Amino acid sequence: MKLIRFGAEGSEKPGILVGEKRYDVSSIVTDYNESFFENNGLEKLKAAIESGTSFPEVAADVRLGSAVARPSKIICIGLNYVDHCHETNAPIPTEPIIFFKSTTSLCGPNDNVIIPKGSEKTDWEVELAFVIGKKASYVEEAEALDYVAGYCLLNDYSERAFQIEMGGQWAKGKGCDTFAPLGPYLATQDEIADVNNLPMWLSVNGKKFQNSNTSNLVFKIPFLVHYLSQFMTLLPGDVISTGTPPGVGLGIKPNPIYVKAGDVIELGIEGLGTSKQVAVAYSK
Amino acid sequence: MKLIRFGAEGSEKPGILVGEKRYDVSSIVTDYNESFFENNGLEKLKAAIESGTSFPEVAADVRLGSAVARPSKIICIGLNYVDHCHETNAPIPTEPIIFFKSTTSLCGPNDNVIIPKGSEKTDWEVELAFVIGKKASYVEEAEALDYVAGYCLLNDYSERAFQIEMGGQWAKGKGCDTFAPLGPYLATQDEIADVNNLPMWLSVNGKKFQNSNTSNLVFKIPFLVHYLSQFMTLLPGDVISTGTPPGVGLGIKPNPIYVKAGDVIELGIEGLGTSKQVAVAYSK
Repeated sequence: MKLIRFGAEGSEKPGILVGEKRYDVSSIVTDYNESFFENNGLEKLKAAIESGTSFPEVAADVRLGSAVARPSKIICIGLNYVDHCHETNAPIPTEPIIFFKSTTSLCGPNDNVIIPKGSEKTDWEVELAFVIGKKASYVEEAEALDYVAGYCLLNDYSERAFQIEMGGQWAKGKGCDTFAPLGPYLATQDEIADVNNLPMWLSVNGKKFQNSNTSNLVFKIPFLVHYLSQFMTLLPGDVISTGTPPGVGLGIKPNPIYVKAGDVIELGIEGLGTSKQVAVAYSK
Repeated sequence: MKLIRFGAEGSEKPGILVGEKRYDVSSIVTDYNESFFENNGLEKLKAAIESGTSFPEVAADVRLGSAVARPSKIICIGLNYVDHCHETNAPIPTEPIIFFKSTTSLCGPNDNVIIPKGSEKTDWEVELAFVIGKKASYVEEAEALDYVAGYCLLNDYSERAFQIEMGGQWAKGKGCDTFAPLGPYLATQDEIADVNNLPMWLSVNGKKFQNSNTSNLVFKIPFLVHYLSQFMTLLPGDVISTGTPPGVGLGIKPNPIYVKAGDVIELGIEGLGTSKQVAVAYSK
């Protein structure tokens, strides 16, 4: 299945994508949230679809929200592509680097990205994210995929000055509002033949900056579920983003390139769809 | 008002503390969560109390849960006491260091603290926390206290090896389950005469290790609300913990002392009550 959320910001409804068509499943699903995943929502939804339940169609131009509801946490993996380590002059980690994005950064896949007040270094990062399907604590790597609901496209926007130049941890530059467009959809595991061999790309104003493949991941999803679950309980609906390949603005030689108002950022991962954000300056 | 949550883990009800007595307010409040604070829950509850609404008493031995429901985020400030900087050989920050604790670390003030599997360096940190009362984005320091619902006692447990010795960011050592006992209660602002002059302490097995005062904070609450709101939207119910004074286990000379199974950790802040955790080893 491909799960979508559609409608105005803050009042999204759950739906599914079948081919190019969108259907409203809010008659049987409240939202794609912790309770949905925890209570076998995926299995029940699948059964309803297979039994021929009729769902109303949704217009193709309705806004998409983030593919899942606001989770308890968004965990990201840093420097998880070998080539991205080279690009940023960082050593290849011997174990995953982890950090949180504020869950308030979550937004729809095609929403505008807001350049924060005072930002001069807003940067992009195409990433493969996955969503937790059931509560995970001290999970063995061999069983880890049982805890995964599916996969999504995420743009892990990062303000490099906030992240790196303002003291201490990365939190300041990773969680700004609109810095986590998630979707267009959540693809359940059965939709993806090999999650470790998906071409991925990102372009700015039509020029391709990132162009890689999930085969280049240093730490893969089963290990990440195992590893993270040693440090904290992962809850159903939690979003974990696996890191970005080379080609971020910070790494461009001789001069880094950052997002400016009016820029159009497009990205995609094969099998997980594409998203597109227009950059706007913060204004109030 | 002093707000408490009471009952079994995962099914806590909201209550209030009046003198030594606890009352169940679940007839008019669902929970102390984002929706409660966002919809003037504090004012409505106050009005109900003042109008003489009768609430059932709760037995004194019922378990207390975390003083507020699971928030969208727990943000912590690092190295925010001058003396704690000296203790850890860190320079006094010129701007706040911020990091997240996983919200799954939240627990009741007197729950057992679980020493994670493989942990040898579980440490304590008595902290003054505050709770956001309304949505805050780009807030001016002068108006910042309008966005604060009240204050709580928090123990910011930290696994120092996970935090410092395992690559990258602090996230691994800060968000383990039970690492954020919050409470006993949330005191609304009017309960505290001067939040910048509250004695605070922490003892382990009856021996006092931390003994300071919130007057030693480097960055105070109004500035923190202003500062954090430049980087992300703070939501009603969010918990922000302001950092710890000297006396953590990591800083003890010549040899650090860490929590071991059976240890009894007690802490308090004047006006915000006390909490007590017994340390247990993880077992399953």
